[in-house]
Amino acid sequence: MTRDERGARVMLSRVVEPGDEVCGRWIREVGPVEAVRWLTGGGGQPRGMTDARWAGLRARAERADPDRDLDRARAAGVRYVCPGEAEWPAQLDDLGDGRPVGLWVRGPSSLRMWALRSVAVVGARACTEYGAHMAADLGAGLAERGWVVVSGGAYGVDGAAHRGALAAGGATVAVLACGVDRPYPSGHARLITRIAEQGLVVGELPPGAHPTPSRFVLRNRVIAALTRGTVVVEAAYRSGALVTARAARRLGRFTMGVPGPATSSLSAGVHELLRQEAVLVSDAAEVVELVGEIGELAPERRGPVLPRDLLAPGARCVLDALPARRVAPVDAIARAAATSTDEAIARLYELRALGFVERHGDGWKLTRQATAPVRDHREVR
Amino acid sequence: MTRDERGARVMLSRVVEPGDEVCGRWIREVGPVEAVRWLTGGGGQPRGMTDARWAGLRARAERADPDRDLDRARAAGVRYVCPGEAEWPAQLDDLGDGRPVGLWVRGPSSLRMWALRSVAVVGARACTEYGAHMAADLGAGLAERGWVVVSGGAYGVDGAAHRGALAAGGATVAVLACGVDRPYPSGHARLITRIAEQGLVVGELPPGAHPTPSRFVLRNRVIAALTRGTVVVEAAYRSGALVTARAARRLGRFTMGVPGPATSSLSAGVHELLRQEAVLVSDAAEVVELVGEIGELAPERRGPVLPRDLLAPGARCVLDALPARRVAPVDAIARAAATSTDEAIARLYELRALGFVERHGDGWKLTRQATAPVRDHREVR
Repeated sequence: MTRDERGARVMLSRVVEPGDEVCGRWIREVGPVEAVRWLTGGGGQPRGMTDARWAGLRARAERADPDRDLDRARAAGVRYVCPGEAEWPAQLDDLGDGRPVGLWVRGPSSLRMWALRSVAVVGARACTEYGAHMAADLGAGLAERGWVVVSGGAYGVDGAAHRGALAAGGATVAVLACGVDRPYPSGHARLITRIAEQGLVVGELPPGAHPTPSRFVLRNRVIAALTRGTVVVEAAYRSGALVTARAARRLGRFTMGVPGPATSSLSAGVHELLRQEAVLVSDAAEVVELVGEIGELAPERRGPVLPRDLLAPGARCVLDALPARRVAPVDAIARAAATSTDEAIARLYELRALGFVERHGDGWKLTRQATAPVRDHREVR
Repeated sequence: MTRDERGARVMLSRVVEPGDEVCGRWIREVGPVEAVRWLTGGGGQPRGMTDARWAGLRARAERADPDRDLDRARAAGVRYVCPGEAEWPAQLDDLGDGRPVGLWVRGPSSLRMWALRSVAVVGARACTEYGAHMAADLGAGLAERGWVVVSGGAYGVDGAAHRGALAAGGATVAVLACGVDRPYPSGHARLITRIAEQGLVVGELPPGAHPTPSRFVLRNRVIAALTRGTVVVEAAYRSGALVTARAARRLGRFTMGVPGPATSSLSAGVHELLRQEAVLVSDAAEVVELVGEIGELAPERRGPVLPRDLLAPGARCVLDALPARRVAPVDAIARAAATSTDEAIARLYELRALGFVERHGDGWKLTRQATAPVRDHREVR
């Protein structure tokens, strides 16, 4: 990734709306640097784009200031991740020309690593007590099983799922429909700040950008694409959570639904989904049974993909802090690695994605692969 | 059906336990009359049967008194229906050698006709308020749509389903695991008596026979075989209702489940079923959408199967009492046919199964086929 290309993508993230496939195809065909040249000066006009729309994009480009966006992001602890870069989650490429031009990321972990073992838990904002309970329970249960909980940071089910994961000392990712420096909804400012400290807050929109109805809808495709599967907890007919589930289905991800009373309008959307395409799940164990079908076993059979030497220093340090055979609690690992608990959790989830460690209740332990001599890895592979 | 064969089957219903496939094969091979001869006098011993078991059956046969059973049945308003007879529901033959040797039937309607458009609604005895509500709602909704509600007469879901159908002025069948002259459970004596008056009470066991755990389990196969599909409303793991649903599945019937909170142990069995093989249903409309896939349309396309002239006089009389085009309430139809409301309902459901009438809310109406000239029927057929 050249500096020019990164800069161009930062610029495009300000100009192009999420999920715009006409622009996506154009950027793929001419490249981001050339696309910016077309927008800001000479050059043609993308195929299949009306004059009015093109004029609108050019007007946005005129007002855009990528350097200021990057400064502003940096000040808020936000980085920009481009397709093809080390932290880019390759599964987003499944979105084709609807792929984000890049992602703004806030938090101490590798989005790529975390996304490898992640599940989306989404649902109604105005959920019932039951929905909030199930979301929190799933969030905690998935976290306890070493899975990363992805949601939209909204009130109701989303927030309960994030909180459940955090309460269990687990990993969680909030995908926002606005700038990641700008917690939305404002009532979740503290929650989103906490997620940014212990987990990840990501989004397509540049710093300061506002959410809009269509941005909410299009944000859902990122949640669907990022994760191994989507669980819908409560959703009325036509709920946004169903959009996420259907996007997941189209992308070949697992779609799951938590049942509720047939008399509850907030379960009606989930039940509709369960009648069509989704698998009924009652708890985190059933979710993992499904989404883990391949993933749970793969590291067992293949051994870690990365040799220890290629790990980033932070992860290497935490890995070295684990005892040879015992299960160790996070705080002990953090102490041994001379780092914070949050930092240790972030690294442990990355190491988990790579097959080096596994979670046991509140503690972590090296996997058999991680403790086996290197020679064995090669043989097994 | 000869008198000898009927008598032999009455005798066998006292001797052979429900669902005994070894005996079923034997009876099929030698015929019921010969089977009784073996039991009561000379003759061989059925293939695959131990001496001890054979001695047990012969001891039962010694104590059996078919004439007394028939007298007792007659006194209680109970008739005996044998395979191949006019009232025998042919779909029970799908049970193969596990087919009942005959059925004891109490009530004013034709079991064969009613079973043609019937759905089983079964579930936990110790159901929740929610389960009782859903069962009653399904019972009423199915009845309103002209479907016959079949269940086991038990406390909880079964009773609520029967009551829902009765409250909607609909048709319902209780399949008991004991003699049909002997309401079980005793707390449902009034309900079962009411079903016998307005609907049908059926069972394999002869008058006075007690229910046993295995008879309860084997009764479920009759419910499954009799109906177009089985809906499970609430069921814990290992519930008898799941036995019915699985039997239905094996017999190629539809299996359906009503979801509930994932936190409810009384929905856990239903959810397990929904994860494996059953279709989620939230109301009667969804049940009918599924089980009616063929049945709902078939009479529309084919016209009535029977010419009017072949109808039994009672049914013919009720059919003639319907106005040419209007929807008429049951009591008006009963008055015009000079019969009781219960009798009119019984006939209307038979006529419904034959495609002559359809239900609209609280009233009934001739179908287009019933009003079309006979010539048209032939053409359509």
